[in-house]
Amino acid sequence: MHSIAPDGAIYPVPRIEEINADFVGIAQRARGWRVVVVQGLGFVGAAVAAVIAAARDAAGAPLYFVIGVDLPTPAAYWKIAKLNAGCAPIASPDAEFDRLVSEAVGQTQNLCATASEEAYALADFIMVDVHLDVVDRAVESAAEIQVNLAGLESAIRAVGRGMRADALVLVETTVPFGTCQRVIFPTLSEERAARGISAPVLLAHAYERVMPGPRYLASIRRFWRTFSGIDEASARRAREFLASFIDTSNFPLRELDDPVASEMAKILENSYRAANIAFIHEWTLLAERAGVNLWEVVDSIRVRKGTHDNMRYPGFGVGGYCLTKDSLLAQWSATHLFKMDHVLEVTMNALQINYRMPLHSFDLLSELCGGALEGRRILICGVSYLPDVADTRNSPTGIFVDALAAAGAHWSAHDPCLRFWPEQPDAVLVEDLAGALRETEAVVFAVPHAAYRALSPDHYPKPLLVVDANNVLDDTKAASLHGRGHRLLGVGKGHWKKRGYHS
Amino acid sequence: MHSIAPDGAIYPVPRIEEINADFVGIAQRARGWRVVVVQGLGFVGAAVAAVIAAARDAAGAPLYFVIGVDLPTPAAYWKIAKLNAGCAPIASPDAEFDRLVSEAVGQTQNLCATASEEAYALADFIMVDVHLDVVDRAVESAAEIQVNLAGLESAIRAVGRGMRADALVLVETTVPFGTCQRVIFPTLSEERAARGISAPVLLAHAYERVMPGPRYLASIRRFWRTFSGIDEASARRAREFLASFIDTSNFPLRELDDPVASEMAKILENSYRAANIAFIHEWTLLAERAGVNLWEVVDSIRVRKGTHDNMRYPGFGVGGYCLTKDSLLAQWSATHLFKMDHVLEVTMNALQINYRMPLHSFDLLSELCGGALEGRRILICGVSYLPDVADTRNSPTGIFVDALAAAGAHWSAHDPCLRFWPEQPDAVLVEDLAGALRETEAVVFAVPHAAYRALSPDHYPKPLLVVDANNVLDDTKAASLHGRGHRLLGVGKGHWKKRGYHS
Repeated sequence: MHSIAPDGAIYPVPRIEEINADFVGIAQRARGWRVVVVQGLGFVGAAVAAVIAAARDAAGAPLYFVIGVDLPTPAAYWKIAKLNAGCAPIASPDAEFDRLVSEAVGQTQNLCATASEEAYALADFIMVDVHLDVVDRAVESAAEIQVNLAGLESAIRAVGRGMRADALVLVETTVPFGTCQRVIFPTLSEERAARGISAPVLLAHAYERVMPGPRYLASIRRFWRTFSGIDEASARRAREFLASFIDTSNFPLRELDDPVASEMAKILENSYRAANIAFIHEWTLLAERAGVNLWEVVDSIRVRKGTHDNMRYPGFGVGGYCLTKDSLLAQWSATHLFKMDHVLEVTMNALQINYRMPLHSFDLLSELCGGALEGRRILICGVSYLPDVADTRNSPTGIFVDALAAAGAHWSAHDPCLRFWPEQPDAVLVEDLAGALRETEAVVFAVPHAAYRALSPDHYPKPLLVVDANNVLDDTKAASLHGRGHRLLGVGKGHWKKRGYHS
Repeated sequence: MHSIAPDGAIYPVPRIEEINADFVGIAQRARGWRVVVVQGLGFVGAAVAAVIAAARDAAGAPLYFVIGVDLPTPAAYWKIAKLNAGCAPIASPDAEFDRLVSEAVGQTQNLCATASEEAYALADFIMVDVHLDVVDRAVESAAEIQVNLAGLESAIRAVGRGMRADALVLVETTVPFGTCQRVIFPTLSEERAARGISAPVLLAHAYERVMPGPRYLASIRRFWRTFSGIDEASARRAREFLASFIDTSNFPLRELDDPVASEMAKILENSYRAANIAFIHEWTLLAERAGVNLWEVVDSIRVRKGTHDNMRYPGFGVGGYCLTKDSLLAQWSATHLFKMDHVLEVTMNALQINYRMPLHSFDLLSELCGGALEGRRILICGVSYLPDVADTRNSPTGIFVDALAAAGAHWSAHDPCLRFWPEQPDAVLVEDLAGALRETEAVVFAVPHAAYRALSPDHYPKPLLVVDANNVLDDTKAASLHGRGHRLLGVGKGHWKKRGYHS
């Protein structure tokens, strides 16, 4: 059995007996340390493990021995192997991530990873950063939302089977509100009771605001953090622990009433962002038909700091792990954990609008192509969901290319940050942008990567159909391209159409 | 024929012959000045007139002679009379307003008002600040929206009949996007053509962000301003004029492509605010049922400056002239001026949610009353739509008391800022709050006026049913009131219900 990392590296997955045998060495090394176990070495957990391993006391000595735990499966084991080799398991433009992992594994030697559940027995603190997702993001109604809690429950059972009675379990995973009190607490209690532990469970929730990009680790360490405990003792332990690795002098911790409140806060926070994006989309369509440059209009409104400066620009779509699903967790919780008939109509509607948003760029492309996409050669520029970040999770480009394929178009994709598209493993990402522009009939700029913004009109080898979904082209370039025979449409760029750039 | 001001002062309305005869004196005084005519002396126009009259050149001399124009009707004439008497026609906590009007009328004598249309002939600049409203705000669909442009058209015809060929017409009224180009421009052109004027119309749009309250005048003079011209000459004139009375060194002007863009910007800006309020309302209902204190949750999220710090708190409802109607202007424009089939679903839905929002407080009150409101004595605290401001335009308290009346409750209302409720002229506003609390069975705090926030539990003469719709009571006071036998529910205060404060 092998586990293949995104960079192509192949690692054999050991048998559990080998893993447990190897763990003896880890347990020896951990002796005398305060031990933190991070459960789940994904996008959040891997970075959190690095940050906690880098925490220092006043004298400059490491505070914790950190053990990252993930599963001995083909999908997950490579993360363990990478980390034990001193490499950050997630590729990031934040060089600090690689540096901290390398230092903690190689020099201070207070960071390692394992698939052994024996790790939990060593922990003073157990951070839960496991994966929790909805089954399908493209749902039309509250009744269709499915959340599979089996993975989380299984992870929590493993913790409960192994943990010390007095360890703090700190949940960072974004969960339906109510999960800590109604799912995790009873699961832990049950497992502990089976071991004869009657001491109260110490359980807290503290959600992450970690973001990919150059401030990946800073978004954990130097940013606002909200938490809550299931009781006062849990809250106190969580506060002390969080303060030991977060810059709380500049970002004081915010404590909420109980985990329902902090679980809801996380989901509300992301739902707000998603709703603001959906709001601007219908004005995008309006502006395009009224001949208005909505980019400039939004710019003029964003001068109002504190009330309007977060107004979203028009765009191609919404991607990422959180904004595309967190609202569904809220609705699922209302329906299933709290048995309410309440429907978050605005919030749910926003998610559906955002999901379909890339199809508007598809419509613009279709308009430029005279309605006939079958057999046309289309180049998509931008596969990640953020500019200059190699993160393809729930990228709206996926929805766009699926529509292209259904229409019978021949599409290819380019992204300066990517060689491989995990969600579309059969897609070939072209590397030679200039060559691809020569081959194609139409180009769609989905993501405002710097490489695309740097293209001058001279870089286009021949007149093309151009859809600019993310303000990659300023008006000067657009006028120049149109003058050279290109035909252009842009998301939110009604003034281009008014000026006849599409014909 | 008489005109009665909100403060009860009665002014006879002169005949138009007398008005025009009096105007001879104004025309004489205006000689040698650059003249600004402000058409419409309502909430915006009256303040704009005062600000422009206070504009000074580098040597400290007034820049303009300002003539405010309104109609010789019972509804409007009192504004002219007040202004000519040196009094601000709109009551405001901003003392600067009274002072500037008094100085400009009494000392520098460069501000006056008239109902004579002859004023337009003197003007270098004509600012249009007339009233434009939808017929009904409580609409369910795009097809139901009605905008009556007759008043605006009539005002513009008066301008066109009198204006000099080279005067700039600057529209500040919030209008459906497209109105300057498709309604005002042809109307002006027609009237000018009838007078043999063939010179191009100079027409610009520059929307106000004026707000009631202590920064009333500052919100005109020291705030961001967006404008656009119907052509380059108009834009240039508008830029120079606006810069002569706005602090453009701290708040540089933003010029947009054309009036469609700036008209849309104004409406979008307010629609955004309205949508954000509607968004939080459905989370308010969720939080109440899940036992969560949403006020605290929103507080914890607003620490994220620039992305989340404008998240709205829960509340009683939305009032005012703009947020309750501007979105309807957008939809009307799309349907009627641009003949689109596009429906602003998110935006329109938000307006409907906001319109119904006070009925949630009604439901909470009903719950405390055991579902039976008939014959119950209810005191509403707060009639204006903003704390500590005497502005009742489209106050959500109006919707609330209509529901109370329909349910057969006996309601009375109190507001520390008001003696009179123009939209409910038959309502008696009680002045003795302590006495009113003795008389009532239930109190609803609709507006967080300082006077209500200052009430201590000792001020309540007997146990009451209390609905706190706007965080008037903190948790300490709520606990104390509940301990003394009051029963409480609060908008967004799920934790009160969890703690049993309602029983």
